[in-house]
Amino acid sequence: MALINENFLNIPSDYLFSEVAKKVKSYKVTRPKRKIIDFGVSDVTQPIPSVVAEAMHKAVDDLSKADSFHGYTPKNGYSFLRDAIIKHEYAARGVSIEGGEIFINEGAKSDTGNIGDILGQDNCVGVIDPAYPVYINSNVIYGRAGISEGGIWSNIVYIPCTAETDFIPDLPSGKLDILYLSYPNNPTGTVLTKEELKKWVDYALANDVLILFDASYEAFIQDSTIPHSIYEIKGAKKVAIEFRSYSRTLAFTGVRCGYTVIPKELNGFTLDGTEVSLNKLWRRRQDIKYNGASYIAQRGAEASYTPAGMAQVKELVDYYMTNARLLKEGFTDSGLKVYGGNNAPFIWVRSPRSMTSWKFFDNILYEYNIVGTPGCGFGPSGDCFLRFSALGSREDTEEAANRLRKKL
Amino acid sequence: MALINENFLNIPSDYLFSEVAKKVKSYKVTRPKRKIIDFGVSDVTQPIPSVVAEAMHKAVDDLSKADSFHGYTPKNGYSFLRDAIIKHEYAARGVSIEGGEIFINEGAKSDTGNIGDILGQDNCVGVIDPAYPVYINSNVIYGRAGISEGGIWSNIVYIPCTAETDFIPDLPSGKLDILYLSYPNNPTGTVLTKEELKKWVDYALANDVLILFDASYEAFIQDSTIPHSIYEIKGAKKVAIEFRSYSRTLAFTGVRCGYTVIPKELNGFTLDGTEVSLNKLWRRRQDIKYNGASYIAQRGAEASYTPAGMAQVKELVDYYMTNARLLKEGFTDSGLKVYGGNNAPFIWVRSPRSMTSWKFFDNILYEYNIVGTPGCGFGPSGDCFLRFSALGSREDTEEAANRLRKKL
Repeated sequence: MALINENFLNIPSDYLFSEVAKKVKSYKVTRPKRKIIDFGVSDVTQPIPSVVAEAMHKAVDDLSKADSFHGYTPKNGYSFLRDAIIKHEYAARGVSIEGGEIFINEGAKSDTGNIGDILGQDNCVGVIDPAYPVYINSNVIYGRAGISEGGIWSNIVYIPCTAETDFIPDLPSGKLDILYLSYPNNPTGTVLTKEELKKWVDYALANDVLILFDASYEAFIQDSTIPHSIYEIKGAKKVAIEFRSYSRTLAFTGVRCGYTVIPKELNGFTLDGTEVSLNKLWRRRQDIKYNGASYIAQRGAEASYTPAGMAQVKELVDYYMTNARLLKEGFTDSGLKVYGGNNAPFIWVRSPRSMTSWKFFDNILYEYNIVGTPGCGFGPSGDCFLRFSALGSREDTEEAANRLRKKL
Repeated sequence: MALINENFLNIPSDYLFSEVAKKVKSYKVTRPKRKIIDFGVSDVTQPIPSVVAEAMHKAVDDLSKADSFHGYTPKNGYSFLRDAIIKHEYAARGVSIEGGEIFINEGAKSDTGNIGDILGQDNCVGVIDPAYPVYINSNVIYGRAGISEGGIWSNIVYIPCTAETDFIPDLPSGKLDILYLSYPNNPTGTVLTKEELKKWVDYALANDVLILFDASYEAFIQDSTIPHSIYEIKGAKKVAIEFRSYSRTLAFTGVRCGYTVIPKELNGFTLDGTEVSLNKLWRRRQDIKYNGASYIAQRGAEASYTPAGMAQVKELVDYYMTNARLLKEGFTDSGLKVYGGNNAPFIWVRSPRSMTSWKFFDNILYEYNIVGTPGCGFGPSGDCFLRFSALGSREDTEEAANRLRKKL
C-alpha cells in the first residue's frame, strides 16, 4: 500500500485566511451596508504595463505562425531574458552574474519551496521571524522542522525581528546550516542597510551557512543606499541563493514569471565534507522535474527592460508606494505606531497596549471596516501586529486613509 | 554547513541526448552536405491552433485593462477550464470527475515528478520498462530507488514490455506500493485495451497499489475501443492518479499547461495503516509550493474545447498521425520491424539481428541521415530499439519516408 509523507500531517491547516474570511463574512452579514476595504491579501490590483502586454501579444503571434513557432523553452530560460536580467538587475548595480547562474521560473514561490529538493534532511534551518510561512512549511514537508508545539517547530531556529531593534535581527548564537532572509521584508516592510546585510554575509562565510535570500520585493526599494541584491555584498556569491519575482512589478501574479540565482561558486556539502556545486544540483533537479517557463511570460518580462518598459514599471511601483505613504499617514494619524512602507509595499502596524493580532484585527475591522492580516500568521514575533498591503487601488487606499483620519 | 540531498549524486548524468548530439555533430563535420532529419526529440513543430491563440490574445487584453484585470489564479485552476475538462474529457466518456479532483498545472512533467512530495520514502515502486526516465529519476531524488548497478536500481521493480508480448506488461509477482503506467506509451507508441487496463486496475485494487497513470498522449488514440482515461475502468478512482497535458494537442510545450486528476476517494496510508486522502495532501502541497497556472494558458486551453477549437485540435492530431503512418510505412518498406504509431505519435523500430540501440542509431544515421532516440535511454528493455517521433513537419517526414523506401 502506498505510504504517504507523514510530515504533511504535522502542518497545521492554513486557518489564517479562512478565519479572516469568516470574520469578514459575519461582519458583512450583520452590517450589510458598510463597505469593507481589504488590504489583507498581497495580490496586485493594477493591470499589466502596456509594453509588457504588447510583447506578450507578439509572443502569442510568434507561436501561432509556422515560421516563428517555438516549442520547448530552455529549462533555465531564454538567454534574451537572462541577458537582460544580467545587464539591468545585476551589472547595473556592479554585480557580476553570468547566464548559467540564472534560472527563469514561474514565480518565486515554487522555487523557494522546491529548493529543498537539493538539500539534505539533516540541516539546521534558521528563519527570521516574522516571515513568509512557505519557508517553514516547505521545510516541514522535507522533514527538517521537527515537532510542532503550539505552532513552534522544535528544529527551526527562529530569529526574532522586533520593534525594539527596528526589526533588524541579531545574529543567532547556535549552529545553523541554512538561513532564510527576506528583504525588503514581508510582512514587516522593513529593509536591511548594506552594513547590516554585510553582517549576515560575513556570518554565513565564517560559519558555512547557506543563505536563501528572498528579494521578491526589491523593486520597491526607494532609498538608493539599500541593497537590492545580496550579491551587492562582497563574498555573497559563496553563500547565497537569491529569489526574484515579476509578480508585483509586472502585475504577473496570474501570469507567473520570476528567477532564481545560484552562483557557480556556491557549494553544499556531502556528509563526508565533499563540496558539491548547488548550481549543478539544481540544474539536474530542473532536468528531472521541470520543463521551462512560458515563452509568452519570458517575452513579457524581457520587454520590461526596454526604456519604455522600465518607465512603466517605475510608474507602477510609484503608484503602490504612494499608496504605502497614504496608508502609513492614515494609520499614524489614527494614533497607531506604524513600520515599513518606505521601501516595501507593506505597512506593519503595532497594536495598542500589546493587544493580540486577532483582537487588533477585530478592532480595525469594526472601527474602520478595513481588513489587515494578523501578524501572528507570520510567526510568533508577528503577534500584536497587523500587515496591510499597499498593492490595492488608489481609490480604496485614499478612502481607507480618510476613514483612519476621521477617527482622530 | 548546508548538507546536500546526496541522492542526486547517484543519478547518472543525462548523457543520452548529449551523446546523440555528439554523434550527429561528428557526422555533419565529415559530411557537411547531407541533410539530417531529426526525429529524436519529442517536441512539436506545428503552430498553436488559431482559436487557442485568439483566446490567449484576449486573455492578455483582460490582464492589460483595469476593469478586467486578474491577479493570482486559483491554485487548482479556474473553474472555467476545470468545467470544460470535466465535460469534454471525462463526462463525454462516461466518467464522473468533479471540479475539486482536477489540478491545473504547467504541464505534466512537473507534477509527475513532484507528486513524490506527498508520498513516503519507504514505498516499493514499480515502473513499466521502457518508460519516460522522469519516473525513476524523480524517485531517486526522494531516496526510493536504492542503489544503481549498471543503470538498474535495486529498489525499483522493472516491468518489462517486450515485442514478444506485443509490449503488454505482465502483472508483477512481488510486492508493489506505487506503479507507473503510461498509455499511450512513450517510447513504444503502444496502448492497452480496456480489458488489459482493467487487469491492472483490478490488480491495484486487490493489492492496495497506487497507480500513477501518465495519459499525456491520450489525444492521439484513433481506435475508439481504447480507453483515454484510466477512470474508464471501474474502480480506478480508488487507485489511480492521472496526468494529462496540452503540450502536443495545443502546441503548448513552450506555453505550459496540463492537469492532474486526484479522485477524492483515493487514499494513501500512514505507517500505522490510517487512510489519508491524497487529494487533500496534494492540495496542501500546492498551497505551500505552488501559486497557480497562467491565466493566459488556461484561457487558451479552455478555447480548445469550443467546436472550432476541437476541430483544430483534431486537425493537428490528424497531421501528426499521418506523419506516424508515413514513417511507419517507410520503416516497414525498408525491411525493419515497426511498432506503435497507430494510437500514439511514436514509432518504435526494432533493430535487425538484436543490434544494440547505439549501433542501430549509427546505422540509421549513416544509411538514411535520420536521427532517432536510442531505446536503451528509456530502460533496459528499450535496448535494440530506436524511437522516432511523428511530431516533426510533414516535409521532413515525407522526405524521411522516401529515403527509407529508396534503400529497399
